[in-house]
Amino acid sequence: MKSLLKPSLNSLLIFVPVAVVLRVWPQFGNKTALFICSCLAVVPLAGWMGRATEGLAEHLGHGVGGLLNATFGNAAELIIALMALSKGLTGVVKASITGSIIGNVLLVMGVSILAGGMKFRVQRFNRTAARTSTTTLTLAAVALAIPTVFHVTAVGWSQATEHKLSLAIAVVLFITYACLLGFELVTHKQLYVGEPMDGREEGKEARRWSVSKSLFLLIVATSLVALMSEFLVGAVEAARATLGLTEVFVGVIVIAVIGNAAEHSTAVMMAMKNKMGLSLGIAVGSSLQIALFVAPVLIFFSCLVGQPMDLEFTLPEVVAVIVAVYLLFQINGDGETNWLEGAQLLSLYLILGILFFYLPERAHES
Amino acid sequence: MKSLLKPSLNSLLIFVPVAVVLRVWPQFGNKTALFICSCLAVVPLAGWMGRATEGLAEHLGHGVGGLLNATFGNAAELIIALMALSKGLTGVVKASITGSIIGNVLLVMGVSILAGGMKFRVQRFNRTAARTSTTTLTLAAVALAIPTVFHVTAVGWSQATEHKLSLAIAVVLFITYACLLGFELVTHKQLYVGEPMDGREEGKEARRWSVSKSLFLLIVATSLVALMSEFLVGAVEAARATLGLTEVFVGVIVIAVIGNAAEHSTAVMMAMKNKMGLSLGIAVGSSLQIALFVAPVLIFFSCLVGQPMDLEFTLPEVVAVIVAVYLLFQINGDGETNWLEGAQLLSLYLILGILFFYLPERAHES
Amino acid sequence: MKSLLKPSLNSLLIFVPVAVVLRVWPQFGNKTALFICSCLAVVPLAGWMGRATEGLAEHLGHGVGGLLNATFGNAAELIIALMALSKGLTGVVKASITGSIIGNVLLVMGVSILAGGMKFRVQRFNRTAARTSTTTLTLAAVALAIPTVFHVTAVGWSQATEHKLSLAIAVVLFITYACLLGFELVTHKQLYVGEPMDGREEGKEARRWSVSKSLFLLIVATSLVALMSEFLVGAVEAARATLGLTEVFVGVIVIAVIGNAAEHSTAVMMAMKNKMGLSLGIAVGSSLQIALFVAPVLIFFSCLVGQPMDLEFTLPEVVAVIVAVYLLFQINGDGETNWLEGAQLLSLYLILGILFFYLPERAHES
Repeated sequence: MKSLLKPSLNSLLIFVPVAVVLRVWPQFGNKTALFICSCLAVVPLAGWMGRATEGLAEHLGHGVGGLLNATFGNAAELIIALMALSKGLTGVVKASITGSIIGNVLLVMGVSILAGGMKFRVQRFNRTAARTSTTTLTLAAVALAIPTVFHVTAVGWSQATEHKLSLAIAVVLFITYACLLGFELVTHKQLYVGEPMDGREEGKEARRWSVSKSLFLLIVATSLVALMSEFLVGAVEAARATLGLTEVFVGVIVIAVIGNAAEHSTAVMMAMKNKMGLSLGIAVGSSLQIALFVAPVLIFFSCLVGQPMDLEFTLPEVVAVIVAVYLLFQINGDGETNWLEGAQLLSLYLILGILFFYLPERAHES
Repeated sequence: MKSLLKPSLNSLLIFVPVAVVLRVWPQFGNKTALFICSCLAVVPLAGWMGRATEGLAEHLGHGVGGLLNATFGNAAELIIALMALSKGLTGVVKASITGSIIGNVLLVMGVSILAGGMKFRVQRFNRTAARTSTTTLTLAAVALAIPTVFHVTAVGWSQATEHKLSLAIAVVLFITYACLLGFELVTHKQLYVGEPMDGREEGKEARRWSVSKSLFLLIVATSLVALMSEFLVGAVEAARATLGLTEVFVGVIVIAVIGNAAEHSTAVMMAMKNKMGLSLGIAVGSSLQIALFVAPVLIFFSCLVGQPMDLEFTLPEVVAVIVAVYLLFQINGDGETNWLEGAQLLSLYLILGILFFYLPERAHES
Repeated sequence: MKSLLKPSLNSLLIFVPVAVVLRVWPQFGNKTALFICSCLAVVPLAGWMGRATEGLAEHLGHGVGGLLNATFGNAAELIIALMALSKGLTGVVKASITGSIIGNVLLVMGVSILAGGMKFRVQRFNRTAARTSTTTLTLAAVALAIPTVFHVTAVGWSQATEHKLSLAIAVVLFITYACLLGFELVTHKQLYVGEPMDGREEGKEARRWSVSKSLFLLIVATSLVALMSEFLVGAVEAARATLGLTEVFVGVIVIAVIGNAAEHSTAVMMAMKNKMGLSLGIAVGSSLQIALFVAPVLIFFSCLVGQPMDLEFTLPEVVAVIVAVYLLFQINGDGETNWLEGAQLLSLYLILGILFFYLPERAHES
């Protein structure tokens, strides 16, 4: 299925050597060029990582395979974030968390529903599965808003209290993710079997990767993503200054779009094949993974390395996540979609993009 | 159908000459009397404009006619707002935007559902059509909240940035409206055909106006509305001072109720005939028109005349619009209503009215 | 039905004499011990009050009995609150209002859905009845947020205006409660008849109390609750200082859990018998009673005794109530529940508990 898009995405692999050249011989281009090239190079590599993970998951069976997919599905984003975190760029890291959620819910879902709705008058899917993931996403959105509520309300709070609060919430989110996996992979797996089966069948038609090939490509792709992330993070500050973009805009829009490009193409293609449930599962599942797995892991990691990060987001980020998830609920809560609903999600993405574009730097420090 | 109410509304036409007299010979009454008379005079004129527009629309067929209805349905409000805008009363204009949305969603819908629910135990309607318009309204409510989020967050923002942000959002809203019209009038018009057909049939029973009569009455009514608006806007400041009302209260409650009186009576009557879908369509449709067409047009106009208005509302207005639209979604999302749901909408209208009544003047300038 | 749990709850009655001893001879224990003992003693007494009220209600028939249940169902909480109010502890009283709503919606509902979902794959219930109560609760949550919106926005407001605003909102909430009772007990009682009938039948199997026994036990239990409340309220300040808990935490978590322990056990047992509709009715009904009956009565009482209380809550309380009610709507809006949804409600309760635990004292006074 993804093979249709592979040519175009794979052609972006050319940017891997280009980025290496720009890094080793800085005289060939400035940091902005390096930033753009490493961004573009991540796109096909993230797709490879996803495909290799899926390949391994298939050989491991539904249970363990599902867990593998659920854990490493957003590995590219996790690597970029860990890299940025180790350089102390917490602002960009936090913005990329909210950006990933908004990007998946509004941009990926919006394009999918619009593209699918162009071909099919109404597209239907399992309402209970859709509601379950949307409700979990609502819970995650609320949880991510709590440290900001604390920050706004608490007078005489200390940074230490804020870190403890964020850590405690990260633990609860992590447990919630475990519960969700238990629901999806064990107790109510029937809800999710229907459509993914079809997806897997088509996967068979395409050449399926063997375990050893999957494992080898996973290691290669992961290493290259790590390298590109190092370049990307190293050049981000200079690129931001040159392009006149704020930290929040880079995190929320730029990095989030790059990290999710692979999911994006798959979700759109599923929607155009009238497999809306699968399309929704990919986009919302990716958001959930970011909120309930990647975000807690980043908090745990930041505590381990002694540079604790909190989950206090800027007000516009909190508003953006909450309204995005709410609009998604209104749209998929009835188990059917049409093109207008896709246009509405894109419309909100555009409005939020405008907000983040005009928002001055460090506005939230006041 | 509307003919039942015509006598009572038409009797308000007496206030047209009364207002003219009060304006020309001020010794007969103060500005407060002029304000009240021109307010009352607008009510039947707005009804006439609506009926004449409908008359023209019928002769022009579904497509163009629908467009005409969608564009001129709230012409009376648009005229009052343009008049107020040209006198620099942006506070009143902005408050009348939020007030129109709240008034239609809570007051008009509330009275309709309550009145209909008194006669019928449960009233049902097309859930998809209701969800589509409510979701669009949610998107509009969120969009209108964005400049306020910007205002609260952005430190070191300039008025110019705020105007650019509002203008960009107005453009997106305008495009969203075009999408909605495409959905309603072209791609999914079947969803909306059912009930309006009945409404049109009944329209046949009542004397239908000819094209020339419709056009003539449209011109006369529009001219008189413009005249009355000029009086109304000229007297509003003096009347507010005398009656001890704040700018926001006048905009949100007084002007919004006057501008929507005609829709109000039609929506209630449809509900009492168990045509809940049509009733909902009128009230929610009017809100949508205000948010997605009138508000952008006012922003564009304000830029043209060099007195740019922004979409930054006071916090209570933003809260009011969002909770009103959210309650509406909870109530009509399942495709049926009962009297208690009408009472709940009115209850919220009352609570918000109390809030705006007690709110001190210019509270949002701090 | 409740008889299963009676032994364990009734054994807590031992704390009634213990509390009396601690109060009369303070040398046997400090105020913290007195606080804890009187807290524990209230639990079985509240259960007795509820059972005696139900006993009386059954003899009085559906209409008057329903009204009695609706009015005295939360009498224990009302007594504690009145006692605290008369000592000027408005902070604790207000926090116990929000805490009761959150506790019922998240803790009681969460444990019920989780426990029921462990035994049954999916549990179904009447969607219209569930939506009606959830929508009313949404309205109540919004109404309780309005004075806070006023407080944040209004510059130059006076305490007197705030009290008038709260009083006006309390009146609207009281009328809304009357409407809801009219809906549940008169116009749409069929919606609610199904399941409670079963409940009543089982009530027959257990020994039903006679009118005189019910009345006698109601008087005894009420007197003892009043006494324990007096102890509890008298010791709360000292206990808080010793345990290092804030006023808001004690109100929102501690007192709310104690006052609702009886409802809690009944709701969980109903859920485990697959009577999810009844379980939901108890928990949401209790929240509604607090918001629409207890809160207004407390406001009226506070005005009568000349110590007017307002409904201005802290921002975290407002956020907590709104997100709790919203999550409930997402979960029960489709008329079915599963164990994951229970876990999600508990997850949110945990997150909010963490927030209130870390929140420093008097943070909202700034």
